Amino acid sequence: MRTSCLFCLFCFYLSFYSSAQEIPEVDQDRLENTILTLAKYGMMENGETNRVAFSDADLEGRAYIISLMQVSGLEVSVDFAGNIIGKRAGRDRYLKPIGFGSHIDMVPNGGNYDGCVGSLAAIEVIRTLNDAKIQTEHPLEVFIFSNEEGGVMGSRALVGELKQEALNVVNSTGYSMEQGINRLGGNATRIPEVERSEDALTAFLELHIEQGGILDREQIDIGVVEGIVGIKWWDVNIKGFANHAGTTPMSMRNDALLAASKFILAVNEVTKSFEGKQVGTVGRISAFPGAPNVIPGEVQLSLEIRDLSSEKIEQLFEGMKSRAIEIEKEMGTTFTFTPIDATSAPALTDPRIQKIITEAAGDLNLSTKQMQSGAGHDAQDMARITPVGMIFVPSLGGISHSPKEYTSPEDMANGANVLLRAILLLDQAWF
Amino acid sequence: MRTSCLFCLFCFYLSFYSSAQEIPEVDQDRLENTILTLAKYGMMENGETNRVAFSDADLEGRAYIISLMQVSGLEVSVDFAGNIIGKRAGRDRYLKPIGFGSHIDMVPNGGNYDGCVGSLAAIEVIRTLNDAKIQTEHPLEVFIFSNEEGGVMGSRALVGELKQEALNVVNSTGYSMEQGINRLGGNATRIPEVERSEDALTAFLELHIEQGGILDREQIDIGVVEGIVGIKWWDVNIKGFANHAGTTPMSMRNDALLAASKFILAVNEVTKSFEGKQVGTVGRISAFPGAPNVIPGEVQLSLEIRDLSSEKIEQLFEGMKSRAIEIEKEMGTTFTFTPIDATSAPALTDPRIQKIITEAAGDLNLSTKQMQSGAGHDAQDMARITPVGMIFVPSLGGISHSPKEYTSPEDMANGANVLLRAILLLDQAWF
Repeated sequence: MRTSCLFCLFCFYLSFYSSAQEIPEVDQDRLENTILTLAKYGMMENGETNRVAFSDADLEGRAYIISLMQVSGLEVSVDFAGNIIGKRAGRDRYLKPIGFGSHIDMVPNGGNYDGCVGSLAAIEVIRTLNDAKIQTEHPLEVFIFSNEEGGVMGSRALVGELKQEALNVVNSTGYSMEQGINRLGGNATRIPEVERSEDALTAFLELHIEQGGILDREQIDIGVVEGIVGIKWWDVNIKGFANHAGTTPMSMRNDALLAASKFILAVNEVTKSFEGKQVGTVGRISAFPGAPNVIPGEVQLSLEIRDLSSEKIEQLFEGMKSRAIEIEKEMGTTFTFTPIDATSAPALTDPRIQKIITEAAGDLNLSTKQMQSGAGHDAQDMARITPVGMIFVPSLGGISHSPKEYTSPEDMANGANVLLRAILLLDQAWF
Repeated sequence: MRTSCLFCLFCFYLSFYSSAQEIPEVDQDRLENTILTLAKYGMMENGETNRVAFSDADLEGRAYIISLMQVSGLEVSVDFAGNIIGKRAGRDRYLKPIGFGSHIDMVPNGGNYDGCVGSLAAIEVIRTLNDAKIQTEHPLEVFIFSNEEGGVMGSRALVGELKQEALNVVNSTGYSMEQGINRLGGNATRIPEVERSEDALTAFLELHIEQGGILDREQIDIGVVEGIVGIKWWDVNIKGFANHAGTTPMSMRNDALLAASKFILAVNEVTKSFEGKQVGTVGRISAFPGAPNVIPGEVQLSLEIRDLSSEKIEQLFEGMKSRAIEIEKEMGTTFTFTPIDATSAPALTDPRIQKIITEAAGDLNLSTKQMQSGAGHDAQDMARITPVGMIFVPSLGGISHSPKEYTSPEDMANGANVLLRAILLLDQAWF
């Protein structure tokens, strides 16, 4: 339980806002309608939506978001990195703003909830405050980050971590990040000016779909995110010896694909041998020369490890490398591990904000579960400059990055209500 | 030991030819020179040769072969399937010809010995007979089969097995088989006329490099081929469920690549669990969607099994399918096996011809080993219409279908001498 007293303004506001009767609730239908409207930007003939960052659909979706922000009375701007930022004044202009938001760009063949729920709930929170004529102490800033799916581009720029070399990366639209930023109304040559200092925000909150199946399976309303896992990637090359599949006896083979198969099993076994929620994945594989009648002489595969602890990621990797050495000896093959520079460090959320989110959900009689985020998010970057919190709502069947992605209108509204209440609690608790 | 008597013409010739002194030997240098000359047709700047069927290099190489046959006194023609056939009259025009030969087309990135040794040794045998002024009883026919590497096209046509649908297959030159046949001087609309009846030849012999490492490793001069393995191919599809690699706990995954890895190990284990020389190979694999951060939802891989016995191939396949069913249950994935119509039945060589080859080698003080051919050959098709024999010579390091392919001039000459002697023994033993 939160402690409070009756003698200070802090507790006055706290007692005022923490009563469920006095805090308004978001309009579930209005929120759902904006989700369905946004889904039309990039909708294809089969009813699925394709809105990769920098595409025409992305530009159109962003225009819709900007208009929605403007009719909600926000002061809207697009920064040099293409982030859409909507400001709402607070009573005290000297307080650092409370930030919240997410993204609206999609992975290719993605769904309409990843990022969109957090973005449109942020705007719905503003509209609900407007309707209830509530002005917060702190200024509020709604962030719709640019190109999250292509490397958390917008949030990286905000924390000064968008490297020059990243600007050359081309996504599935055919545009490089540099070209894309300019298409979004940014200015790729002025990215460094976007960086925020560590005292620029009071806190940052992100509502997001879980993208996993835990809440849905356990029938829990709200996930209180403890942290966002770190991600490390390696390219693994396995060299054997290509030879004729008909004329090379089983005993004389150096089959790189057989060695790779043993390694894939080892990745799974090593990952599961540790206590905890760590994950290890081989998602990509190629065998060369790749003909049915030739023993593979070389295999390339991807290795990804995620965990909240960098140390455990290292331990897991060492365990996998040891198993690779055993396979090398057994199979006459060689393994090479090349780290890939697309990785991120673990980011813990602020325990005080976790507590506020839990309380907010409790006030609304919503069940909660402390959990980690296995996916990367803009909040992960924002944690470099400000305390962050993340609220998860259920993903049906745990499906994400797929047109089958789905979160019910009730769950979206629950998340938006928790976000609204957490912002108001933060506004009062955190001067 | 071969039995003989002194009272018949048969035994007169047999005793005449079987004495090593009286049978001429091939010209090792001349044979090597033709190998080196043929290698120039399609030679690239890096010194490697690229002579895929239907390419300009193939056309030029064939023109060289035709001229070599013509100066060797053969009556040369190109049949409707593009096979080059060189005829030499026998003493008895009513006897069915003895056929021998191989092919000169190459796989992409192949070597200068596969097919070429057997082709040029066949011509060298003719030149040696010419030099020694030996006329055989039987007519002789040298076959240089068209497009062996692209599906034993020429020999299939000769035995009436080149299907109409195969003519649409395009190889790496960009030409379809139909276009290619016409480029070679054949006529794709008249393929059926090429078919030979079952009594068209006395026998067919093919000299070939081993394409495996057994003779080289065991330092044996000549392989006496017992049979050419049958080949069966399947496309194997494994369905799991694609999901986010960060948000899906290890215990909630249906990882198609993990299931595929278990299956690849099972293919190896089942193949090795039987006595014999059978081989089982997974050479091609694709995982979908194929991103480092997505659990593979689907895998496609190739399965190939080869053995001299069709029954054993079936037993091996059943064993692998049983293991797939176990993996399905364990992993929550499904396996589908689709047979591919690029397979061939096992072909046994004629035991009488095996004996003649062994004797011929013995007369030349060459060591022999009975072995199977793990690779497919034109002789495999020819076995449908006539008794066949195959002579193997060592491949250095067992390497084949590679620019590193190599057989020494001595080994090539040994093979050619065994071929020559086997033809002469056949000529006398087999009216």
